[in-house]
Amino acid sequence: MLILTSQEDVTADMVVVHLNASGVPVVRLDPADLTGTVALSAEYVHGAFRGHLSSAGRLVSLESLRSVWVRRPGTAAARAPEPSAWLTEEASQALYGMLRGSGARWMNHPDAARRARHKPWQLRLAQSSGLPVPATLITTFPQAARDFAERYPDLVVKPVSGAHPQDPPRAVPTTRVPPGVDFAAVAYGPTLLQRRVAKRADIRLTAVGDRLLAARKATAPDGDPDVVDVRFAPSTAPWHPVDVPPRLAEAVRTYLREAELAYGAFDFAEDADGTWWFLECNQSGQFGFVEVETGQPISRTIAEWLAGPGPQHHSRHADCCGSAAP
Amino acid sequence: MLILTSQEDVTADMVVVHLNASGVPVVRLDPADLTGTVALSAEYVHGAFRGHLSSAGRLVSLESLRSVWVRRPGTAAARAPEPSAWLTEEASQALYGMLRGSGARWMNHPDAARRARHKPWQLRLAQSSGLPVPATLITTFPQAARDFAERYPDLVVKPVSGAHPQDPPRAVPTTRVPPGVDFAAVAYGPTLLQRRVAKRADIRLTAVGDRLLAARKATAPDGDPDVVDVRFAPSTAPWHPVDVPPRLAEAVRTYLREAELAYGAFDFAEDADGTWWFLECNQSGQFGFVEVETGQPISRTIAEWLAGPGPQHHSRHADCCGSAAP
Repeated sequence: MLILTSQEDVTADMVVVHLNASGVPVVRLDPADLTGTVALSAEYVHGAFRGHLSSAGRLVSLESLRSVWVRRPGTAAARAPEPSAWLTEEASQALYGMLRGSGARWMNHPDAARRARHKPWQLRLAQSSGLPVPATLITTFPQAARDFAERYPDLVVKPVSGAHPQDPPRAVPTTRVPPGVDFAAVAYGPTLLQRRVAKRADIRLTAVGDRLLAARKATAPDGDPDVVDVRFAPSTAPWHPVDVPPRLAEAVRTYLREAELAYGAFDFAEDADGTWWFLECNQSGQFGFVEVETGQPISRTIAEWLAGPGPQHHSRHADCCGSAAP
Repeated sequence: MLILTSQEDVTADMVVVHLNASGVPVVRLDPADLTGTVALSAEYVHGAFRGHLSSAGRLVSLESLRSVWVRRPGTAAARAPEPSAWLTEEASQALYGMLRGSGARWMNHPDAARRARHKPWQLRLAQSSGLPVPATLITTFPQAARDFAERYPDLVVKPVSGAHPQDPPRAVPTTRVPPGVDFAAVAYGPTLLQRRVAKRADIRLTAVGDRLLAARKATAPDGDPDVVDVRFAPSTAPWHPVDVPPRLAEAVRTYLREAELAYGAFDFAEDADGTWWFLECNQSGQFGFVEVETGQPISRTIAEWLAGPGPQHHSRHADCCGSAAP
């Protein structure tokens, strides 16, 4: 199997330990090293395809590839002797174009990963999958925002896209909307308003294939109700493993199937009734901190999925080219 | 229906003429005008989704949207009063995220369009669809290039990705490989080598849904055999309509179905035996010049596809969110 990631990636290291213990051959490479320590070759002759990758002297044939784990790959050819936008484009097209034709299983497929980042699409899919979604408005119409705030007076505002594109990217906290806001400024940029869930706990549900591993972190009873974003709250309660309600598990699996994701980190807010409200699903969400606090075997489960034998899961993305001739 | 394109787009104008004649309501907008003359709103309440777009005062509901034609859209919010990378990201996520949840038919869906640009993937899909593909090698191994050149002495070299990322982008011509080349330089960047087809004509096959419109341009008998790229050859013979051989038509439809493309411009090289060799499929290829020279009704066919009634073609990309509640 193949791992696309940078050299400094301790989370990948956790998974590689399990893969090595199981004896599965692993090739790890960073696309940034292309035309340096990474080389590739693909031949299309007489209707057949043969491909090879080599990284630091290890050669892997694309036909033998079971799975590709897209962890934190660098920009293709970024560390080439003479990097350029042109070389990056050529190297990226060559590498990912070859891999897309390989028939390997992906965690996650680049197309599915890209689509999964769209928050408006996430909300719609969560709804149609049967997950509870807090009332949400995304708008550039000030009047639509005012009407919404009248119906749902207790609101939070968050970015549509996620992280601010700084270098390094900066997470933008979810914040409460103070009463009496005018909303005229939404005309200058799409704004996501969401009914605030009065939560008693945060839920992180990590999905690996069909396995769902959920953890719960109780909200501090004396917590500041204005701090709604767990990433910016002072850490008090620890994460504990928690069972996933069967109906919710079914909805999560529907979501993953429709999204064509093999991995997803779901964030829910648990309210006083015990309902888990869908906030988002991050297809590349970190899992190291949950594994460390809860002892849940996330990295081992990922290793098992990656090492799993064929035939591949029926993926819509891969099946066009799955039957590679010898 | 919705057209995403820039204001100066005469090819889109050709299609709009036919749409207007048929009385189908058309909203045309450029994502670059977001938060200026373009506004959007999407509401997720009680498991239902309602979305609206407005452009220059015309309002369209996403539930009523039959189709989206992605022609030449500008960068989202590029013409906003205070453009920024952050605003572009937010506006792009909001617009495309909403549209992805709309259930409309796409020409072409952004995911399918992005995937279709990968040349190595195109070659593999063309092979598995039953299209004749000239022997091709993509490699960074000099020895692999040398071995290939021994088996196929008459080669052309072309870019893996297509256009050079200049501003404006520059097309890189396909060129013949002179004999005795050493190939040591392929180690510095992936190189695509392909057996040269001794062609007697270029074929442009424009596919619109299930309709295939092919045109043929004979190679000048005294043409320079070193000029292999029709885009850079002096134009002598005109484009003429030509019938598509039934087996080839079947392979092209397989390709389009697997690629999930509603539109594709295929380039083939016809050899002395009359075989059409697959060179590439451009999912956003121009069609105006073929329509003008051949009189083939390409823009009318596109208009008919876009105006076509539901139920939508069973698209893998759209079906997760196709059942929008009222």
